[in-house]
Amino acid sequence: MIAQLGIIGVGMIGASIAAAAVRRAGIARVVAYSPGNDALEAQAAGWVHRICADAPSCLNGSDLVVLAAPVGAIVAMMPQLAARLHELENAGLPLPHLSDTGSSKLSIVASADRALGRFRCRFLPAHPIAGSERSGAQAANPDLFVNRSVLVCSDHRVGAPTRKAVSAFWERLGARVESIDPVAHDALYGEVSHWPHAAAFALCLGIARGPHAEQSLLRAGAGLRDTTRIAASDARLWSDIILSNRDHALRSAQRHLAALRALVEAIETNNTAGLCELLEEAAVWRRQLRDAA
Amino acid sequence: MIAQLGIIGVGMIGASIAAAAVRRAGIARVVAYSPGNDALEAQAAGWVHRICADAPSCLNGSDLVVLAAPVGAIVAMMPQLAARLHELENAGLPLPHLSDTGSSKLSIVASADRALGRFRCRFLPAHPIAGSERSGAQAANPDLFVNRSVLVCSDHRVGAPTRKAVSAFWERLGARVESIDPVAHDALYGEVSHWPHAAAFALCLGIARGPHAEQSLLRAGAGLRDTTRIAASDARLWSDIILSNRDHALRSAQRHLAALRALVEAIETNNTAGLCELLEEAAVWRRQLRDAA
Repeated sequence: MIAQLGIIGVGMIGASIAAAAVRRAGIARVVAYSPGNDALEAQAAGWVHRICADAPSCLNGSDLVVLAAPVGAIVAMMPQLAARLHELENAGLPLPHLSDTGSSKLSIVASADRALGRFRCRFLPAHPIAGSERSGAQAANPDLFVNRSVLVCSDHRVGAPTRKAVSAFWERLGARVESIDPVAHDALYGEVSHWPHAAAFALCLGIARGPHAEQSLLRAGAGLRDTTRIAASDARLWSDIILSNRDHALRSAQRHLAALRALVEAIETNNTAGLCELLEEAAVWRRQLRDAA
Repeated sequence: MIAQLGIIGVGMIGASIAAAAVRRAGIARVVAYSPGNDALEAQAAGWVHRICADAPSCLNGSDLVVLAAPVGAIVAMMPQLAARLHELENAGLPLPHLSDTGSSKLSIVASADRALGRFRCRFLPAHPIAGSERSGAQAANPDLFVNRSVLVCSDHRVGAPTRKAVSAFWERLGARVESIDPVAHDALYGEVSHWPHAAAFALCLGIARGPHAEQSLLRAGAGLRDTTRIAASDARLWSDIILSNRDHALRSAQRHLAALRALVEAIETNNTAGLCELLEEAAVWRRQLRDAA
């Protein structure tokens, strides 16, 4: 049972967790820390009951603490969280289970390995596959995780009580919990999420810097809108995610650039059959994705 | 008044026009030609009353004929249509107004200029800004054009009766008719539609050819789905459109590739501030597009 939930980072994801915890899971008490005004907004909405002065204070008295900050911030706060766990233990106080929501896992796993020592068994790295191009507490949605996957890292060092508490929590929010190897996770999400975000930003950047930037705003149809929706996302958050999974993102980038060069060559040489074959190869994959929905 | 409408090409767009003409505009008689089974499907649905043996036969007895075939097919059929107009005139029969739905305009305008001679005044090139990644008559939607723009070419050679008949027709289908210079049209739609389609196909092609093709089908979230939706489109149709607007598409491609290279360089050099600035520049444009909705 979670009597008190701690949330570090009250952006769109953290605030949605707070909202879902209160509205869907009936958790009585949510404490949170966030820089800026997001925690205040979540408190005004009734999803956060106490605002903490700093990130480690969210651990005091909490049964579960979710790190919902940007990946780089999670990596950076690990030593402070470890120090607080030591203090709580020395004072004979109960220790919380820990999890996170970072979009890449290897840098977070590495920082936890370095910082947490014997508390490592209490931290289960996780990634809810849910999001929005909108950011901040005002974009929170208590139903964000319903029927969505939450991927938790397969890691034998994580204790069974922590694994059980974190999984049960996400299930109460409506999510399906699945296990994934963190290396496989980062390779796969570099491919299906991190690089595609970069690609959508790049498509917009090319238009924004071109001669049709103004007119395009007036004339874009549903195709361009969908293709670039995620490029309205928070730039700081996504530069952080992409750089935290740099090697995999770059490998995906190289494959994408090779595909683009093949298309450009077929267009330049007016190679109708060749272009059609390339587009069809892509469309076959995309129709499989459609049918897998 | 349109007593008989002719439609050449009964794909998703042509069939949607037929459906809208019958269901929304109450047009009594639609005749159509299409290769394959699409015209039969539209006839079975009650949107087409007679199937013609070939494209020029759609002109016989029609008040308005819409060329809804792929751009390359429209270009190729112009001389046959011109020959039929001559025959009708020589027989003292009434001549239809002509329009089309091609996604690029300059190659169609050029073919009309070459082929139509003194009948050029009866052809108003047009582009309805509506579509779907689905293709064929079975994807038809009688409401496809409601509140959508239909861009008609500003061209002083088009006669006032033709301009009036074509505009009134689209308005009865629920669309807003707007005028655009065909050169400006092709530059703009190369940027906001033709190249973005190629980019979405290329993103899928890179994934389909990479080591994560199978797993990506299982793990892709809403972001990748939206970003690549239009890559499920008909490959033949889009290779035709892109090549029909080759120079503009390639100019858009160069701007997009330059943007991608800038992102890759920032990622390779771990330049957080630089990457964040590039993503923010893109996001500012995309949020303007969101707010322009």
